Amino acid sequence: MATEEPRSLPDVLASFTDRWSPRIVASVNDYDVRVAKVEGEHLWHAHDDTDEFFLVLTGELHIALREPAGERTVVLRQGSVFTVPRGTEHKPYAPVPTEILLLEPTGTLTVGDRHEEVPDHVDATTGHTLD
Amino acid sequence: MATEEPRSLPDVLASFTDRWSPRIVASVNDYDVRVAKVEGEHLWHAHDDTDEFFLVLTGELHIALREPAGERTVVLRQGSVFTVPRGTEHKPYAPVPTEILLLEPTGTLTVGDRHEEVPDHVDATTGHTLD
Repeated sequence: MATEEPRSLPDVLASFTDRWSPRIVASVNDYDVRVAKVEGEHLWHAHDDTDEFFLVLTGELHIALREPAGERTVVLRQGSVFTVPRGTEHKPYAPVPTEILLLEPTGTLTVGDRHEEVPDHVDATTGHTLD
Repeated sequence: MATEEPRSLPDVLASFTDRWSPRIVASVNDYDVRVAKVEGEHLWHAHDDTDEFFLVLTGELHIALREPAGERTVVLRQGSVFTVPRGTEHKPYAPVPTEILLLEPTGTLTVGDRHEEVPDHVDATTGHTLD
């Protein structure tokens, strides 16, 4: 790690155009910090064994949640954070082009452990490394 | 967790003025996401058992590092990220008022497991909860 350098999130985000296809920008112990460009609908899915943290860097992210008390949607404007608890089915949606930062254990799949059919525009991945 | 709502980092950062005194804005499994206002010098310290992740939200953070190859300083401008590896002595410094986001295991002390004398302007804490 002796030659690690800081990474600029704006530079990383300018280096790709794919939607719903996270890039790993840093690792912290056995967790990954990822950034993604998103727009439109993701899919209903759940991570059985881990929480998932979202920070909206630019744009706006809606996360539909299926909770014991019923379904609701939280709205994260720029600069907002939210943690989806483990086991909670959720579906992210971005009404405009949006950039997000995610935190989850290394190896966590973007589509979770349980999910509906993965649409073509969504990348089922544990995150892509940067060059 | 059924009634958790998103939290706005700008609102959280507007709610306090203390320097070097992190607030916990979210938890992710057994990790905390914290934000802090910083300016001037922190202190040399090391976390023996955990990496520490930094994201500069506004301003500029310099982190001096004592690595096997010698001492160097990394500069994180706004939007930059960096992970200090576990065991590495480091000393943050902000030349201007700066806002940072930190990620580390719940219970991690701001001054690490080994540190020089803690100056009066630095809060030795595992992070403060929000109201």
